[in-house]
Amino acid sequence: MRVDLTQLGLPIIQAPLAGGPSTPRLAAAVSEVGAFGFLAAGYKAPDTVRDDIRDLRALTDAPFGLNIFAPPAPADSAALERYATTLAADAERYGVALGEPRHDDDAFEGKVRLAADEAIAVVSFTFGCPSPGIVRRLHDADADVWVTVTSPAEAREAQEAGADALVVQGFEAGGHRGYFIDDPGAEDYGLIALLRLVADRVALPLIGAGGIADGAALAAVLCAGAVAGQIGSALMLAAEAGTSAAHRAALRTGGSTALTRAFSGRQARGIVNRFMREHGDDAPIAYPDVHHLTAPLRAAARTAADPEAVNLWAGQGYTLAAQAPAAEIVTRIAADARSTLAAVGARLGGGQQA
Amino acid sequence: MRVDLTQLGLPIIQAPLAGGPSTPRLAAAVSEVGAFGFLAAGYKAPDTVRDDIRDLRALTDAPFGLNIFAPPAPADSAALERYATTLAADAERYGVALGEPRHDDDAFEGKVRLAADEAIAVVSFTFGCPSPGIVRRLHDADADVWVTVTSPAEAREAQEAGADALVVQGFEAGGHRGYFIDDPGAEDYGLIALLRLVADRVALPLIGAGGIADGAALAAVLCAGAVAGQIGSALMLAAEAGTSAAHRAALRTGGSTALTRAFSGRQARGIVNRFMREHGDDAPIAYPDVHHLTAPLRAAARTAADPEAVNLWAGQGYTLAAQAPAAEIVTRIAADARSTLAAVGARLGGGQQA
Repeated sequence: MRVDLTQLGLPIIQAPLAGGPSTPRLAAAVSEVGAFGFLAAGYKAPDTVRDDIRDLRALTDAPFGLNIFAPPAPADSAALERYATTLAADAERYGVALGEPRHDDDAFEGKVRLAADEAIAVVSFTFGCPSPGIVRRLHDADADVWVTVTSPAEAREAQEAGADALVVQGFEAGGHRGYFIDDPGAEDYGLIALLRLVADRVALPLIGAGGIADGAALAAVLCAGAVAGQIGSALMLAAEAGTSAAHRAALRTGGSTALTRAFSGRQARGIVNRFMREHGDDAPIAYPDVHHLTAPLRAAARTAADPEAVNLWAGQGYTLAAQAPAAEIVTRIAADARSTLAAVGARLGGGQQA
Repeated sequence: MRVDLTQLGLPIIQAPLAGGPSTPRLAAAVSEVGAFGFLAAGYKAPDTVRDDIRDLRALTDAPFGLNIFAPPAPADSAALERYATTLAADAERYGVALGEPRHDDDAFEGKVRLAADEAIAVVSFTFGCPSPGIVRRLHDADADVWVTVTSPAEAREAQEAGADALVVQGFEAGGHRGYFIDDPGAEDYGLIALLRLVADRVALPLIGAGGIADGAALAAVLCAGAVAGQIGSALMLAAEAGTSAAHRAALRTGGSTALTRAFSGRQARGIVNRFMREHGDDAPIAYPDVHHLTAPLRAAARTAADPEAVNLWAGQGYTLAAQAPAAEIVTRIAADARSTLAAVGARLGGGQQA
């Protein structure tokens, strides 16, 4: 293992935040202060990702990670066509044509090759488990492999594939659920219980993800068995994040979050808006087809600063997010975690004795 | 406030565990070692609850709590009739008639009066918020009032009604969701995020509930802002619990949990079985009508040691539950929480400094 998670200066991993918020500046700011920054390869061409890597390396010598989407399961094309017809009024409203619902693998092989070529310290996967062969290729390139898991069964599968660490994603998390398969019958676990169940079954370093927006929550996941916490929404208002104006405004306004397939064809948590309410029940399991189908709508709404048809990804703790430079956000969260642990340990009378 | 939660010998509250597992012996064993035991008034006549209180007082002088179900919302009687027709094959299978689907308030007024007459230290409410008048009556009787909440909005309402502490119930919890209203559109919160959001909005002592089955999870909720953790599934296999044989066997076997209205007409988390799979989609929002409707089926299945039609309530951490005397379970969880806090605090370098 190339990155020893127990030796991070701050026990915080930046969530990859694909789809806009991820920027080289954000990852650099996070890694520079001793936490661990990430680039998101998702939705981007390998050449664009290479540019991001170079931009990031121009900003910092600190190690960072690259997140890659695992190839998707087949989609139901009949359900997809039916869904497209339900979006006609929205297309008219925003004056755009719907996108072509392509079923692609987001240039998976090209991104794995890029990660190996560029000697990225950590390559993490979301939406599936890389094969043992892919894991070996990355290990041969001196990269660590992390896998996002949402259940004890996925955790075991990732361990068997050779993963070096697991990003354990609770139900609270914003953005896409990392399920290997988007199965409506699967159990969604809250983060504390999931960390305990995974720690009971696998022997890998765990990174807790989902709803962690302040130091007390970070201290909580560290107690629950994580060696670090991954924060996403807490960085979405950072100066260095590429979060859109419509998204920033929604994050500051508040409101419930829910899971939806309306935007992408895969379950993801966002702030509830009109598009989710009107289309959530009709949306099929068809990722990334639906992502491409709705892309022009979302882009037009974003341009119009209309949050009602934008995918407003947010975890359940998002209203606690601060507007500040990323370095200040992660430094404060880590410091608050330390003081929380000290205060709770002192109250229980065991904090000073171990 | 009569019970100072920060002064408990062990920062653990026993979940009330209505419907069988709750016994005076269990509550006494928990309270005797410095944690806080509970009796469940739910589903019982006030005279039976009075007997439980007297049995418990014969076993310990330690304070304890009594949990009362708040009166339910109206049920949809047409949906209820449709649901009853879908249960005919099950009634035949178990050789029983379906129960009479009564809509009652579980003798709410009688139980509040009993709690005041008996000078119970803590009266907690589930399924709704008591009126400010009820809270005053209990305060006049020198009782503390705790309210189970599942969202920041419910937390504020309970604070305004005069609650002394809140039982903050995460999505992970076994048994019934404590929602004031069973609204399919409501956001279900994971416990860490919910504790942080509630702590941000109300100034009351919080008790974290949901998926806490070991010391690491208890340490986590204490860091997340709870003054104590409430444990339920972790005590279901205790020697003193009244958990049925069928339920005990299922808890030892493992399997997914899910939320269902199939058994009671209100969302509750249990281990998935045939009855949940076959009837979950048809079950209406009609509590306690459906509870009464399915009671004979569940009783017959329990007698036959057939877990497939029993409500196998379990939180998401239930596979971590130990079979041991209750005193040993709570003592070990508290000790493990202390050592977790010490170890994590030491790793972060802040544990000894505050």
